[in-house]
Amino acid sequence: MTSNNQALEINALKQIQVPSGKKVKLSDYPTDDFQLDGHRLDKEKTQEAHTALEEQLADWQEKLYAEGKQSLLIVLQARDAGGKDSTVGRVMDAFDPNGVNVVNFKQPTEPELAHDFLWRVHQQTPRRGMIAVFNRSHYEDVLVTRVHGLIDAQKTEQNLQHIVNFEQLLADSGTKIVKIYLHLSPAEQKERLLDRLNDPSKHWKFNPGDLKDRELWHEYTAAYEDAMTSSRDHAPWHVVPADHKWLRDHLISLILLRAFEEMNPSFPKAAFKASHYEIPEV
Amino acid sequence: MTSNNQALEINALKQIQVPSGKKVKLSDYPTDDFQLDGHRLDKEKTQEAHTALEEQLADWQEKLYAEGKQSLLIVLQARDAGGKDSTVGRVMDAFDPNGVNVVNFKQPTEPELAHDFLWRVHQQTPRRGMIAVFNRSHYEDVLVTRVHGLIDAQKTEQNLQHIVNFEQLLADSGTKIVKIYLHLSPAEQKERLLDRLNDPSKHWKFNPGDLKDRELWHEYTAAYEDAMTSSRDHAPWHVVPADHKWLRDHLISLILLRAFEEMNPSFPKAAFKASHYEIPEV
Repeated sequence: MTSNNQALEINALKQIQVPSGKKVKLSDYPTDDFQLDGHRLDKEKTQEAHTALEEQLADWQEKLYAEGKQSLLIVLQARDAGGKDSTVGRVMDAFDPNGVNVVNFKQPTEPELAHDFLWRVHQQTPRRGMIAVFNRSHYEDVLVTRVHGLIDAQKTEQNLQHIVNFEQLLADSGTKIVKIYLHLSPAEQKERLLDRLNDPSKHWKFNPGDLKDRELWHEYTAAYEDAMTSSRDHAPWHVVPADHKWLRDHLISLILLRAFEEMNPSFPKAAFKASHYEIPEV
Repeated sequence: MTSNNQALEINALKQIQVPSGKKVKLSDYPTDDFQLDGHRLDKEKTQEAHTALEEQLADWQEKLYAEGKQSLLIVLQARDAGGKDSTVGRVMDAFDPNGVNVVNFKQPTEPELAHDFLWRVHQQTPRRGMIAVFNRSHYEDVLVTRVHGLIDAQKTEQNLQHIVNFEQLLADSGTKIVKIYLHLSPAEQKERLLDRLNDPSKHWKFNPGDLKDRELWHEYTAAYEDAMTSSRDHAPWHVVPADHKWLRDHLISLILLRAFEEMNPSFPKAAFKASHYEIPEV
């Protein structure tokens, strides 16, 4: 059961949800704050409530799986060092991994490039009863390709329309879509990149290309703002403050809790009478 | 670092590891016990040590991923209610889900049946740096098909030889294979099946076919014993006592710890000088 406090927090999610079809300004959204009744969300209380929240999510997932009629697609996007990988880890902590696929979209391969940009994505959508987490997604095709000049404005617009249509197909077929942008400040990104440079055990995470992308900060901002016009009630974008991991994780858990409430899956009625069966002796 | 006590426990794993190429008798292996220096493993101490063990596994996984040269394949097999799903959940708790694929092999589809039985399996083997967990596996093709008379003894023998060759290919290509049979007593299976029948929230897990398979208990035993002749040093079978979840989880964690030690992955040396880079201002 959702607690009263959770209901209040869920209601407050509207401050980070992008209105359907509207153009947003990312600078209007905080990277390190979430307001509840005029107060900042409290770190200690939030962390205390985390275990209960995880158990609720686990219960919902079991019902989603048992029911086998709907599915949940979580789309994660962020700048470099935005926390996508660690978010996947935390989100997954709540779930039974048998019911989740994490999909890491990397550079498309030759056969993938030989098809339309949604071809490889469509193959990874969650089957009924399942959750899919897209770590990067079809949105890269209106973000990185656009910022690096591989596609022009017209093609970007066209791709975005195809994305909207594609997500409508999924939604009409029983897939709930939740889109999350991890909203990081330039200062926090700098800290994290420096950390990768200065800690030898993190060197393998450092990619000099990330510095080039940082130089294109404002171009990415513009591309994200355009991409988020794909927000719909059945597939909303959320601008999640991502400078603090505890806040990020809590808000994402709340977003998922709300998504499950809206789907409202339930255990199927048994098609048998338990008393009809006897366990054979061995 | 592996502790002294862990080293002792790892050494004791030989009592549940199937010798290379040998025919085993499952009744020689306990379903509820593991001996260390002549004593049963203690539940409380084992659970206390669990967090540290999970952290070690997480550290090893990060190195495996960062190194990107080797991969780990965990094959899970068990009778119905043997605990495969919950094992996957517990094993995964230690790992970053971005580095693991859980593959649930179900009834083969028409296109899968139109190929050899290893075709769909080969597609799911772990890429370098990754872990794959097979929840059921290619072994079903020498187990369920054999017990239900879909293939004869000769075909079973042939399939088993193909499996040995296939696993050799993977091992020669940098994949460490760990095969785990969750060894359940008939009494414990009965408890678990009754639980599914009597608890309405577990009805969806109950499959009347499981009772038919229970009647074939001894036929499955014979099939498993033959399948385990595929044990090799690079792809050993383990008969893990599975009546108690704490014992099962601990032994599997130890088996994985040993596998990582044998692979011994390490962070790659940086191909750059950190001091060459400056973080651009935004």
